[in-house]
Amino acid sequence: MRKVCVVIGSRANYSSIKAAMQAIQNHSELELQVVVGASAILDRYGSVVDLIEQDGFTPDARVFMLLEGESPITMAKSTGLGLMELPTVFERLAPDFVVTVGDRFETMATTLASVYINIPLAHTMGGEVSGTIDESIRHAVTKFAHVHFPACNDARERIIRMGEREEDVYLVGCPRMDLVREILEAENGLPCDLFADGVGGAIDPDAPFLIVSQHPVTTEYGEGRDQMMETLIAVSRLGLPAIVLWPNPDAGSGQVAESIRVFREHHDDSQIHFFKNLPIDVYIRLMKRTTCLVGNSSSGIREGAFIGTPVVNIGTRQSNRERGSNVIDVGYTADEVEAGIRQQVDHGPYASEPVYGDGFAGKKIADILASCDVRLQKQITY
Amino acid sequence: MRKVCVVIGSRANYSSIKAAMQAIQNHSELELQVVVGASAILDRYGSVVDLIEQDGFTPDARVFMLLEGESPITMAKSTGLGLMELPTVFERLAPDFVVTVGDRFETMATTLASVYINIPLAHTMGGEVSGTIDESIRHAVTKFAHVHFPACNDARERIIRMGEREEDVYLVGCPRMDLVREILEAENGLPCDLFADGVGGAIDPDAPFLIVSQHPVTTEYGEGRDQMMETLIAVSRLGLPAIVLWPNPDAGSGQVAESIRVFREHHDDSQIHFFKNLPIDVYIRLMKRTTCLVGNSSSGIREGAFIGTPVVNIGTRQSNRERGSNVIDVGYTADEVEAGIRQQVDHGPYASEPVYGDGFAGKKIADILASCDVRLQKQITY
Amino acid sequence: MRKVCVVIGSRANYSSIKAAMQAIQNHSELELQVVVGASAILDRYGSVVDLIEQDGFTPDARVFMLLEGESPITMAKSTGLGLMELPTVFERLAPDFVVTVGDRFETMATTLASVYINIPLAHTMGGEVSGTIDESIRHAVTKFAHVHFPACNDARERIIRMGEREEDVYLVGCPRMDLVREILEAENGLPCDLFADGVGGAIDPDAPFLIVSQHPVTTEYGEGRDQMMETLIAVSRLGLPAIVLWPNPDAGSGQVAESIRVFREHHDDSQIHFFKNLPIDVYIRLMKRTTCLVGNSSSGIREGAFIGTPVVNIGTRQSNRERGSNVIDVGYTADEVEAGIRQQVDHGPYASEPVYGDGFAGKKIADILASCDVRLQKQITY
Amino acid sequence: MRKVCVVIGSRANYSSIKAAMQAIQNHSELELQVVVGASAILDRYGSVVDLIEQDGFTPDARVFMLLEGESPITMAKSTGLGLMELPTVFERLAPDFVVTVGDRFETMATTLASVYINIPLAHTMGGEVSGTIDESIRHAVTKFAHVHFPACNDARERIIRMGEREEDVYLVGCPRMDLVREILEAENGLPCDLFADGVGGAIDPDAPFLIVSQHPVTTEYGEGRDQMMETLIAVSRLGLPAIVLWPNPDAGSGQVAESIRVFREHHDDSQIHFFKNLPIDVYIRLMKRTTCLVGNSSSGIREGAFIGTPVVNIGTRQSNRERGSNVIDVGYTADEVEAGIRQQVDHGPYASEPVYGDGFAGKKIADILASCDVRLQKQITY
Repeated sequence: MRKVCVVIGSRANYSSIKAAMQAIQNHSELELQVVVGASAILDRYGSVVDLIEQDGFTPDARVFMLLEGESPITMAKSTGLGLMELPTVFERLAPDFVVTVGDRFETMATTLASVYINIPLAHTMGGEVSGTIDESIRHAVTKFAHVHFPACNDARERIIRMGEREEDVYLVGCPRMDLVREILEAENGLPCDLFADGVGGAIDPDAPFLIVSQHPVTTEYGEGRDQMMETLIAVSRLGLPAIVLWPNPDAGSGQVAESIRVFREHHDDSQIHFFKNLPIDVYIRLMKRTTCLVGNSSSGIREGAFIGTPVVNIGTRQSNRERGSNVIDVGYTADEVEAGIRQQVDHGPYASEPVYGDGFAGKKIADILASCDVRLQKQITY
Repeated sequence: MRKVCVVIGSRANYSSIKAAMQAIQNHSELELQVVVGASAILDRYGSVVDLIEQDGFTPDARVFMLLEGESPITMAKSTGLGLMELPTVFERLAPDFVVTVGDRFETMATTLASVYINIPLAHTMGGEVSGTIDESIRHAVTKFAHVHFPACNDARERIIRMGEREEDVYLVGCPRMDLVREILEAENGLPCDLFADGVGGAIDPDAPFLIVSQHPVTTEYGEGRDQMMETLIAVSRLGLPAIVLWPNPDAGSGQVAESIRVFREHHDDSQIHFFKNLPIDVYIRLMKRTTCLVGNSSSGIREGAFIGTPVVNIGTRQSNRERGSNVIDVGYTADEVEAGIRQQVDHGPYASEPVYGDGFAGKKIADILASCDVRLQKQITY
Repeated sequence: MRKVCVVIGSRANYSSIKAAMQAIQNHSELELQVVVGASAILDRYGSVVDLIEQDGFTPDARVFMLLEGESPITMAKSTGLGLMELPTVFERLAPDFVVTVGDRFETMATTLASVYINIPLAHTMGGEVSGTIDESIRHAVTKFAHVHFPACNDARERIIRMGEREEDVYLVGCPRMDLVREILEAENGLPCDLFADGVGGAIDPDAPFLIVSQHPVTTEYGEGRDQMMETLIAVSRLGLPAIVLWPNPDAGSGQVAESIRVFREHHDDSQIHFFKNLPIDVYIRLMKRTTCLVGNSSSGIREGAFIGTPVVNIGTRQSNRERGSNVIDVGYTADEVEAGIRQQVDHGPYASEPVYGDGFAGKKIADILASCDVRLQKQITY
Repeated sequence: MRKVCVVIGSRANYSSIKAAMQAIQNHSELELQVVVGASAILDRYGSVVDLIEQDGFTPDARVFMLLEGESPITMAKSTGLGLMELPTVFERLAPDFVVTVGDRFETMATTLASVYINIPLAHTMGGEVSGTIDESIRHAVTKFAHVHFPACNDARERIIRMGEREEDVYLVGCPRMDLVREILEAENGLPCDLFADGVGGAIDPDAPFLIVSQHPVTTEYGEGRDQMMETLIAVSRLGLPAIVLWPNPDAGSGQVAESIRVFREHHDDSQIHFFKNLPIDVYIRLMKRTTCLVGNSSSGIREGAFIGTPVVNIGTRQSNRERGSNVIDVGYTADEVEAGIRQQVDHGPYASEPVYGDGFAGKKIADILASCDVRLQKQITY
């Protein structure tokens, strides 16, 4: 009976690992442990921990680790805080594996807390390529992880080229696609009170509309406000109704949010609706319906390929990430963004391309964790 | 005028970067900043910071970050502490580069504090291969660093294979060899009061003698005491006088130290002398004279090749590190260690092999830092 | 030339010490140092640090120390964080005095950081009596402080009864009254765009209106939402327009804020305006005009006495604090609050009572700090 | 069934509370929880936690919180660290009372962690008077504590005069006297291998001998080395054999230890034996036999009165602490110390004076914790 401790630090983390958590919980030879921390336990970010409990998981620990301030300094110090807190938790839970997801800054706290105290680390979504500091974080976690679960084939190859042993690298796809598959199979409609949450006017989801999801780029700290403003101007020029999502709590998110506030004060927002968070099922169904997803969210690249969503991807945040034919890449100016959206409006929906998995990643991850051999002392293969 | 901030966390750190610090301080287009932390500011570890000041450097900050306990838990938490402290320091000093050395646990604190707040990171001694968690730390730092200063050729090639851009990787050799070169050129004798420090009997350095330097292996936590005891037994069987050095403050050092204490209580120590620390110049001259260096210190592999010291290298701590012909590798038992030493006694001194540099690394590092282009946004090359 | 380091952790802190800061800065024998931390450097709480700079002060350090979460756990841990950060700051600034204000949780971090490293501590607003954990914090700071600046006479007597030396206790009044005096003397009108900030309808400040300022009570954690809702119901029954202020960032503030949000969703808010923060000068002028100030803010007790504002004080937060005749105390139910307000509506404005100082406290504090003798080793007087 | 959580941070803490822990563990209506932290879990300070387990207690948590460095800065930061760690522990254990002992710096971490999260605090050894920062800490803890267990009558009166409610203050005596009573009643001899531990010569405990126990004074940081040297010189002048104990891990202990080392190098130590720690039973029996106890340990004042030990108390560390007739107070110079010792040599043993309890404090404490009413919201009585 192996104990597997999954650490969740954000809403995105959770939806990227939920299918694996279900499979681990249901596996006869695995015991699931859940640690929830960083923004996932905060009211301000929609109390993801409540959602986790509603989904039938029991958090074994809640770890406060975010220092207020949302600057590069607090991002670094928050990681330090997490690294002071998590060893205590891991020592108490004594898992056989810690599972960490992706590449957010707090992932380094999970990673170091685990490997420094000799607990094997499993890593999902490694080997991909992107912009921001996440690019370095992801590859550094790969160099610490003992078991790798890349989501796509070029990620798998990259992990091996970085010197990881081929037998430790398992191409399983992204567990988030499991959720997307289930949601699309359920064929539910959108909630009728969808626009009761958030602020701004109600939008007709059966008519053409845009989705905007744009996050700060940590290596371009200080420019987030202008970048978001350009996007909002482009959107307003299109004249299509739009759903705008709140930025992630990275360094710079305050600036992006500020941009949203300023825009709202100076523009009629009856055709724009702002959400802090959307339930993933609603979001996926909106991605299935939207005329075009605009911004720099990874969901356009990943779920977009699976769903067939037309995407205008802005700037450096997703640069070099493997993508399907549904994505058009543009720069930060309102003109570029506008041109991209118009091109996608003309094209319409794309065919599904399962670049990031076939929708059954969770089960594969659980089976591997239950049976794989682990060599605690790593060594580069060349 | 670029500001270069060198972070020193231990005695070994300092001697590995001192030559580069001198070259940076003397460079007309560079300004040196010095941050001293972790064990380097503690009396218990010989107050390396005092040595740094005596050498003409001025510490810009002293960072307390070691949590008492010397276990894997405190190693992890100490890194967290460092990561909470260092961003404050870097924000105040605002360097153009942070320089971090090697692969000790606190190196991750320096690394994350630097790159999370968008300060370019230079890394020395990357790309090498070893045992323990240092192996993962070293490669993870490589994935964060913007400029790489490997010490030997296969390290350079490994860094590039991990996906770093060739133009960011500079083969300079190890700055520690600069010191070794200077010490050997000076042709000074040993201090006449050498054995006034430390405990145990005085040894005749003109007659054959052994040096023992054995550190805990973090991934073999709990076995350090027995491992050291086997070595001490082997040494006592040889009947040669021996100089025994105190272990590094890694997780498990208390156990190794305990082993030393127990041995001393039950054996005549008139022919064994124990040192907490030795000045590097004395140590190098002893390496030049010793019949054989026994243990798992990296100095046997690195300086040993340059000096030509016969070395018996024990266990996994240095596994796969590039080495010259002066090294014999053995396991942990007293029998294996004894056999290795006897073989080296028969062989005698080796010819010099400059595997880890030609003794002029510091100047090369300073020149590169003064002129190199840096791309803050990293991206893997494949 | 004595260096005096004032530590500011919140908006309330700042307005309580600003007059003393001005006097210290202007004093020929004192050098002012300013450390800004906790909520005072956060956008979310109105960036008090910007205000501090606009007022002509230069922060010597900004200290991030608030852990996100707003629960008793994060309040405790945030204090721990402050206590890890502030010694570094104080060591660098090397002040002759640290000045700490009042009784908020982070005050303990300032206090311990100062006295543990042997820097004399001056404390303003000690010796008063209130509810919540602030009551214990305030008296504990008194037991650490070397110089005491109570605001009112019974506070002075209480400090001496607690065992402090009479010669270390200086009755100076509250420096906040200096600001109140200056604001009222200036006879400025309210800003014409007052209601452009915040949310909700515009209110006529020349007609009768209420002010609501209610904060969570840390020892009644979990009840803040209901308590605030009762107050808002009482206010809505009165039918008078109202200005409602956002709660302090204490444990429980999220609950009070939630209550405000729920109320806004279910009530017409054209006659209610919500502010996150108000400039102190605007607030004082509103206190001069309001029909009645409702809630548990200390301003009703303190500035209210000086200004003559009718106050309905709710619950335990201000219990036993010395008060003038302008205050009516009530319980938490809507009925009690409503009855209190009606009584104050009938009464109208009160005469000024200078219970908390004559408006010249800042100058007195500066003069004393410049000349007083300090005995670092404290000892209780009995 | 009330849960009582005792927090132990040092060897002295433990022996001061052990009798109460036994009584709590044996009480039918109480459940004992034990948290061990700070120096009590460290090998360097003799692993008090092992002793606690040998005595039949089960630690519920071990809290690493000491930052290496032993300076005022690290003392402050270590307290901050404890304050970040302990809320997690208390939240998990959810005790009805936290019990904190005395006045060491880490006591403030226990205190704030408890009261900030609304857990009632019981405090032993409050209300006494001493030198150093402990004086302020002790009284500050009193202002936070909900139940007080002073050890002597003037301490009880002082607590009440500080504004605590008489019904919350219970004069129970010091639980350490319970242990002293039991040890003296047992009438065991000294262990025959007593001098196998520690360093230096063996001493005849049946002939006259001195005990030296001198600790650094935090407010006299930097002077500890000279102070200790004077005492050692005085002792050597007497010509009596001596047992010298290692200093506490306060700021400055490194300096006192250094003094011991220097003295040992330059003096014949065949008549002096140095111990890092002594089991309390051995120590008490030595106090019963010694010609004179020299230094600034509280044991001379407290246990000394109960046992009747002649004591020469040096300097400010115990100033104003209530004492029996067995104590002679002197200054720091070798001459003063020597004169004091000679006077005690002439006097010989004193009669027992139970100033600090009758030897049955533990049972009283347990009974009170099982039945007392607690008012969470404190308020000063005047």
